[in-house]
Amino acid sequence: MAYGEDDGSVRVSKSQLYLGGISIILSSLFVLSRSSGALVCTSAAGNCDIGAYRAEALARTPPNIIECAEADAGASQEICHLPSAERFAAIGQKGVTLWMTGLSGSGKSTIARALEEELVVKHGKVVQMLDGDNVRTGLNRDLGFSPEDRGESVRRVGEIACLFNQAGVITLVTLVSPYRADRDAARDRHESQKLPFLEVYMNVNLDVVRARDPKGLYAKVDAGELKDFTGVDAPYEQPLQPDVDLPNNEMSVSQSVAMLMEVLYAEGVLRGN
Amino acid sequence: MAYGEDDGSVRVSKSQLYLGGISIILSSLFVLSRSSGALVCTSAAGNCDIGAYRAEALARTPPNIIECAEADAGASQEICHLPSAERFAAIGQKGVTLWMTGLSGSGKSTIARALEEELVVKHGKVVQMLDGDNVRTGLNRDLGFSPEDRGESVRRVGEIACLFNQAGVITLVTLVSPYRADRDAARDRHESQKLPFLEVYMNVNLDVVRARDPKGLYAKVDAGELKDFTGVDAPYEQPLQPDVDLPNNEMSVSQSVAMLMEVLYAEGVLRGN
Repeated sequence: MAYGEDDGSVRVSKSQLYLGGISIILSSLFVLSRSSGALVCTSAAGNCDIGAYRAEALARTPPNIIECAEADAGASQEICHLPSAERFAAIGQKGVTLWMTGLSGSGKSTIARALEEELVVKHGKVVQMLDGDNVRTGLNRDLGFSPEDRGESVRRVGEIACLFNQAGVITLVTLVSPYRADRDAARDRHESQKLPFLEVYMNVNLDVVRARDPKGLYAKVDAGELKDFTGVDAPYEQPLQPDVDLPNNEMSVSQSVAMLMEVLYAEGVLRGN
Repeated sequence: MAYGEDDGSVRVSKSQLYLGGISIILSSLFVLSRSSGALVCTSAAGNCDIGAYRAEALARTPPNIIECAEADAGASQEICHLPSAERFAAIGQKGVTLWMTGLSGSGKSTIARALEEELVVKHGKVVQMLDGDNVRTGLNRDLGFSPEDRGESVRRVGEIACLFNQAGVITLVTLVSPYRADRDAARDRHESQKLPFLEVYMNVNLDVVRARDPKGLYAKVDAGELKDFTGVDAPYEQPLQPDVDLPNNEMSVSQSVAMLMEVLYAEGVLRGN
């Protein structure tokens, strides 16, 4: 279990201090430069609340910009792109997002890696796993571990998952993603585009992940070296109605993979039509 | 040709005023909150230069966070993920990024769409086209059309292209991307991860795209309704050594597609090994 992958846990790095002392300037004000329409991050105190800045920027954006010459206003982007049914039939697979959420140590990466290998090597399917490693080191290099930056990180991963899903890729997201609202927002973005989204809950409790402690992170928490750790002194909001409940403490990795393969078969993901 | 797709042209929207009047606060100062390690956007003037904030955030991020239990420091992410050679052999295709750059009206989207259809429908390959529609309406919803936001948009598309490329997807980027430095940065990010990147220059001059004017944008420029338009009153820096030079004014769409298919064959993209 990679700590860098965890949007809901604390990244331990010598160059990164802990979150405890962050003073967020809640009093920041945001004004629009009326002469240009540009958004400017402004505050009376001289500090900009980057989270509020982003929220404002997102709120200002029209939900759809459809620019294909052939598309009527509000029409689907399928007018510009190949229709999904034709695409999926041709490539022999359908897009889906498995959003795997759970505590650090709950098996997200382990099970996703094993599932990926099964899908790629045995079935020849195109798969991408979006985790802390490949997202934190690339797209999200500009984000830290403040609550605002974590929210933005989950939002971006949700958007990238939509893009993979559209292309017909089986998309495995492995982020702690501790907040229900963030996960629901990712689901909404998928559903508004008619993209299949399945929340997979790594249903193992704190005692289990403490006992596993594959990276020794819980030991560090107990030693006071880590603060704001998801499930200990920071919240983890478990899914209320996950699409897949995976109590993997009582299952082997291969049993967990088999269960997810069954779900993918049932969704028709492994065939394109 | 979609104006929303064009990171280097001006988006025309009733809700969006022109860029001419943007006053960028160059005097902004950025300080690190020493108590927390968090980056705070601060300026004496009370306005935050979001571009400089992002540059600072990017500069602070360690280039790699490798967290797989099995990975040595600095080791490839392949240790955590399936090796590329095995993946590509299994799925029967290799990842590549075709970065298509050129003026508005130069044929990027038209040729990319035709190429996508050829690859998907005739060859059963998994393809994603990253253009203004699917990126601007999703991942980049928080970004506007200021120079800083355009730079960030190109950076993010470059990072997403890397993710698709890693998964073995044939990735078609269709952005005006007028600045050489931005395109070179996308290339560098690919090459540092040993991901094939081919810059495709839609080599048609301003007279040609003015005559085509598929969206009537150049007419609007001439009427003074659009300002800072790439190639007219905003710069377009043409590739000095494009990997593929596509003077598509002298070619049909199908000839252009055939030329790109030849390139993909030569790169071994259409077979996995």
